[in-house]
Amino acid sequence: MNYFLSFSFMTCKSFLHPRVSITAQENENGKSYSTKVARNPKMERLRYNYLFPEISARELQHVTEYPNAKVISLGIGDTTEPLPDVVASSMANYAHSLSTLKGYRGYGAEQGSKELRKAISETFYKDMGIKDTEVFVSDGAQCDISRLQLLFGSNMSIAVQDPIFPAYIDSSVIIGQAGDVENESGTYQNVEYMKCEPQNSFFPDLSKAASTDIMFFCSPNNPSGHAATYEQLEELVQFAQKNGSIIVYDSAYAVYITEDRPRSIYEIPGAKKVAIEVSSFSKIAGFTGVRLGWTVVPEELLYANGFPVINDFNRIVCTCFNGASRIAQAGGLASLSSDGFKAVLSLVDYYKENAEILLETFQSLGLRAYGGINAPYLWVHFPGSNSWDVFNEILEKTHIITVPGSGFGPAGKEFIRVTAFGHRENILEASKRLRNLFS
Amino acid sequence: MNYFLSFSFMTCKSFLHPRVSITAQENENGKSYSTKVARNPKMERLRYNYLFPEISARELQHVTEYPNAKVISLGIGDTTEPLPDVVASSMANYAHSLSTLKGYRGYGAEQGSKELRKAISETFYKDMGIKDTEVFVSDGAQCDISRLQLLFGSNMSIAVQDPIFPAYIDSSVIIGQAGDVENESGTYQNVEYMKCEPQNSFFPDLSKAASTDIMFFCSPNNPSGHAATYEQLEELVQFAQKNGSIIVYDSAYAVYITEDRPRSIYEIPGAKKVAIEVSSFSKIAGFTGVRLGWTVVPEELLYANGFPVINDFNRIVCTCFNGASRIAQAGGLASLSSDGFKAVLSLVDYYKENAEILLETFQSLGLRAYGGINAPYLWVHFPGSNSWDVFNEILEKTHIITVPGSGFGPAGKEFIRVTAFGHRENILEASKRLRNLFS
Repeated sequence: MNYFLSFSFMTCKSFLHPRVSITAQENENGKSYSTKVARNPKMERLRYNYLFPEISARELQHVTEYPNAKVISLGIGDTTEPLPDVVASSMANYAHSLSTLKGYRGYGAEQGSKELRKAISETFYKDMGIKDTEVFVSDGAQCDISRLQLLFGSNMSIAVQDPIFPAYIDSSVIIGQAGDVENESGTYQNVEYMKCEPQNSFFPDLSKAASTDIMFFCSPNNPSGHAATYEQLEELVQFAQKNGSIIVYDSAYAVYITEDRPRSIYEIPGAKKVAIEVSSFSKIAGFTGVRLGWTVVPEELLYANGFPVINDFNRIVCTCFNGASRIAQAGGLASLSSDGFKAVLSLVDYYKENAEILLETFQSLGLRAYGGINAPYLWVHFPGSNSWDVFNEILEKTHIITVPGSGFGPAGKEFIRVTAFGHRENILEASKRLRNLFS
Repeated sequence: MNYFLSFSFMTCKSFLHPRVSITAQENENGKSYSTKVARNPKMERLRYNYLFPEISARELQHVTEYPNAKVISLGIGDTTEPLPDVVASSMANYAHSLSTLKGYRGYGAEQGSKELRKAISETFYKDMGIKDTEVFVSDGAQCDISRLQLLFGSNMSIAVQDPIFPAYIDSSVIIGQAGDVENESGTYQNVEYMKCEPQNSFFPDLSKAASTDIMFFCSPNNPSGHAATYEQLEELVQFAQKNGSIIVYDSAYAVYITEDRPRSIYEIPGAKKVAIEVSSFSKIAGFTGVRLGWTVVPEELLYANGFPVINDFNRIVCTCFNGASRIAQAGGLASLSSDGFKAVLSLVDYYKENAEILLETFQSLGLRAYGGINAPYLWVHFPGSNSWDVFNEILEKTHIITVPGSGFGPAGKEFIRVTAFGHRENILEASKRLRNLFS
């Protein structure tokens, strides 16, 4: 079994939906016709999804081996609890209204409805001076990352945290910023990897980091669960200012912050001149399947020639996107209403309690677990181990699916990521099984 | 007033939502900070949206001048009639079910639900041998066009119909296939424009067309309304086979076909080896605001090295997209059910009757109007005129908004596009006003 990993696996979330991957060989049996079109060399550079079929295959094999086992997934970070009534009803009512002459609406503004843009700016950017016209509603953060890559183009130099959610690196390979894979750990050429480890408080040593055009930064971080402190973000913004860089700041997990940490990069003075912020309703309101997110591009953010970045991003949104579903937008608006927001935050609390249970479990076993306080992810350290071996051992002995940390970058090679999304009874059962395994 | 046009205007559909465009000048007043990041030269190549603010401004001015005028929009092709109950209810029920423990679902497969993929393949590709696994559900055709451009990358040579829906050209500029604007008519370097005019039965003279990697072809065509005949498509497929090209075939208006014409490129033998098909629920089911579409990539379609295109497209969908909204997918599935499909086709008939009324109007006035029989668009010829002048005269004298044809390419410079989407009473009123103007 080949455990060599790429960064790219997490981009296919449907671990349990194996699908046919056609092999070139099957089609080169002599009787096939090929076009004369050369495969895009940028796509060729992508490491193929080793982990997804590997985890699928491993799980399938496991279920075959233990047909009566109750497998618990703490793998993919996917919400599990029902939407609040007020949110679901608003979407149902909106859908119904589309069957009436009075309620029917066609195309909406590509940037999202005025009401929702206003609600986002008032809920998440109060006192930060972000205007509703600087908020672009989308169908999710992952989609916006790719649109940002289209905005930037292939000539940008980029930096990413290590570990990090793989969509950043994969999309930078696809657009052509990243070069070839450079070594066995699966890193790419032309990418500055900023190591974030326990020994540096999960914040890169910027005195040693190269200056790049774009810096992708995710806080609370997926996978490590670390939420950057005010001082860390201040240092990041100053570093960007010094270098003239643009920060793409992913705050998709900001509502999970418990401690006194910034929930937006725009809490840092001067950030509007250097940062774009990407976020999502997925983990705020359980919208993983509903699809809704947003990106903030401040008017003050300018290219070297003084041209406003927001103008080009608006053009990308108009050309490459046609607006988020109006029904999803109705749900987003309801989730930011007074009652709605209370209800979704109580869901967030539920997942945070799950995280507490898991964190307590690992810590009581003497394991070094990070995250879980300001994020729905735990990042558990197994010094000297290979994350795939740990994954296998946990699956084998407890029937629990986790994610091997090496999938998020070389810095993850001794870690596993454990998600706190799940029904409480499963979390408690997982806790019990883990205690049995490690105690 | 500057009537110089770009191809790009139609990419912002919200004509009536003027928005602030920040100018570089405002920010170059000496006190501003700029990053050191260079603006993406590909974005710089795009002609900016001249038409959108121009039409907006023109309409605003018109409304100010004639405050009591009832303006009728036959401009943007946007559905106006309520969704069938069966479709709206299915979405409402699905939304409600998300608030129950039993009905809640998180992330779906990025490629769309198995049921919907199957329904699409059975409804639209019956007897053509398209498998459900070759259908990728999306949030709309325009979004898929950009994902296809990511798939292809910057090194492809491309051909487009002239006239054509502008998202194709704009996205090819953004990805870097197209070069600079080459002349006053707004065409780009490195793009093969295939003229489709009345004198060539709206089908390009392929004996004179350059061989390119990718050929974008839209039938029924937006804007001309021409649906290619079987013989024309056979010639197109053979041309692609001869050159080893890939056809990207846009069939978003196929359900509007009345005459005996192919509704899918896959009706042509051999097309699966050379063609991708993009389509949408927008104009089939009134989903312009709901957002749902699909793309077919046959397994048999291979790059020169034998590598299946479907594998790379799957990777793009997994990395740059996270699946269409589950609620929209529930609506799409309902619209393909036996009752649902009958209901949406009766909506299509309604718009087709509108088209008939408008076509009859123009023809009875002795004007040369094309389209309208196999498409919800009419393409009206005003020989020797400038499309912007025609647009202005019609607005001034009848309070009707149309679209100047030059926005779709140089071949449109003597045409206006008129949409058949609208309430019947508006179409009848528009017909009356046009008769008064031109008779």
